[in-house]
Amino acid sequence: MEKLFVIKIGGNVIDDKETLHSFLSAFSSLEEKKILVHGGGKIATKIGDSLGIQSKYNNGRRITDDDTLDLVTMVYGGLVNKKIVAQLQSLNCNAIGLTGADANIIPAKKRPVKDVDYGWVGDIEKSKIESIKLKMFLDNKIIPVFAPLTHDMQGNILNTNADTIASSLAVALSADYDVRLIYCFEKKGVLEDVNNNNSVITNIDRKKWAELLEDGRLFDGILPKLENAFGAIDEGVKEVLIGNANDLFNNTGDKTTGTLITA
Amino acid sequence: MEKLFVIKIGGNVIDDKETLHSFLSAFSSLEEKKILVHGGGKIATKIGDSLGIQSKYNNGRRITDDDTLDLVTMVYGGLVNKKIVAQLQSLNCNAIGLTGADANIIPAKKRPVKDVDYGWVGDIEKSKIESIKLKMFLDNKIIPVFAPLTHDMQGNILNTNADTIASSLAVALSADYDVRLIYCFEKKGVLEDVNNNNSVITNIDRKKWAELLEDGRLFDGILPKLENAFGAIDEGVKEVLIGNANDLFNNTGDKTTGTLITA
Repeated sequence: MEKLFVIKIGGNVIDDKETLHSFLSAFSSLEEKKILVHGGGKIATKIGDSLGIQSKYNNGRRITDDDTLDLVTMVYGGLVNKKIVAQLQSLNCNAIGLTGADANIIPAKKRPVKDVDYGWVGDIEKSKIESIKLKMFLDNKIIPVFAPLTHDMQGNILNTNADTIASSLAVALSADYDVRLIYCFEKKGVLEDVNNNNSVITNIDRKKWAELLEDGRLFDGILPKLENAFGAIDEGVKEVLIGNANDLFNNTGDKTTGTLITA
Repeated sequence: MEKLFVIKIGGNVIDDKETLHSFLSAFSSLEEKKILVHGGGKIATKIGDSLGIQSKYNNGRRITDDDTLDLVTMVYGGLVNKKIVAQLQSLNCNAIGLTGADANIIPAKKRPVKDVDYGWVGDIEKSKIESIKLKMFLDNKIIPVFAPLTHDMQGNILNTNADTIASSLAVALSADYDVRLIYCFEKKGVLEDVNNNNSVITNIDRKKWAELLEDGRLFDGILPKLENAFGAIDEGVKEVLIGNANDLFNNTGDKTTGTLITA
């Protein structure tokens, strides 16, 4: 099968103009088929503050009320997404900016209220992702760039976790492509020693993961990323790569500077 | 040739929730191929005021400085566009929200500085419009919905007049479709008597236009609309319709309640 990269960048890339530009240059130069998913960044909080929209949190998770939904719709879906698209176009990458509502590519459901009402937050309906539309874009050399927004098919946009959008798209496209799902984050990869940025574990398979868990040496915050990674692999994604945005080009070949996760 | 409607709505439709919803219902029910272009509406000014971004004007034309560009990118390209897309999706219309930067469909040039520097305002490069991309969407039953934004192919979004986007798309697609370009505005059509909303002139061709000009009875603001209409017809658009958003359904057949303009 043909190769496809599904690449996710977060606030640490979006918030820094130079980092973003050099990442987008590397992204543009990739010759393989590719999809970009971006998070929000601090700009939404900054604009929200100016508009008097207070971010509300519950156990560290943002609650999306009406005003916050408008805020993320305009900042993620408009400002951040279209600026990235315009920059990619200038780099000869024929990008198209999308939310999950566009062409109904990512249907979702408003998260049910249990203990907490998260508001306008979307849980993706994975089986309904319209990968045929994405294939149409990719076959026509159009590069999808997703903002972290979906819709409920009842007229509402839903705020949706960018990591989950990336993994859901990767899973949906695994029937048609050999997908490498790449999560860009602030470190070079999964580290043996959290204080040593050069101690990247270059390959993790299930056996290695079991060992790492037993050793108890994995640093804070990396466990959910690894769980997600193996979750995606369970659902058909060929490889997951966790690495730094600056190393994108090195992380798209057979030898990687980040951590390559396989079955 | 197959029929195609290119339909433009402005602030008077966007700013009123009920008017917008009933317009979108009618738009969804059209069985012919169709494209929607929307303007901005008062919401941009309102959010701009909250953010302390003052609208600057020169001879009644808004000047787009850096802050205003960010504002219109997020409000037109994000908030307004994606809300329309989500609503259309709920009405079984498979909409895709776009700016001219997306898939490089509408390349433009920053307006040259002569007497006035309009800032980040785009003049469309008509010959470079990628109608083949629009045809791909239409052939796949995907309905393009354009925000009034283009790009300069050098990494910048450009604020662009929605009427001009609509007429430029109509012209570009006239090689492939029998295009009816529909401008929705606050009146029922071009009126014989500006004080009588029921005095719609149902058909205007060049001969009739010459008569109307000679009579000097045309009301303020309608002249540029008619000039634009005949301009589009000169460039290959089959018909231009000027009418009210509430009458959309009546304005898509052979008999219309608005004003149908033909060669």
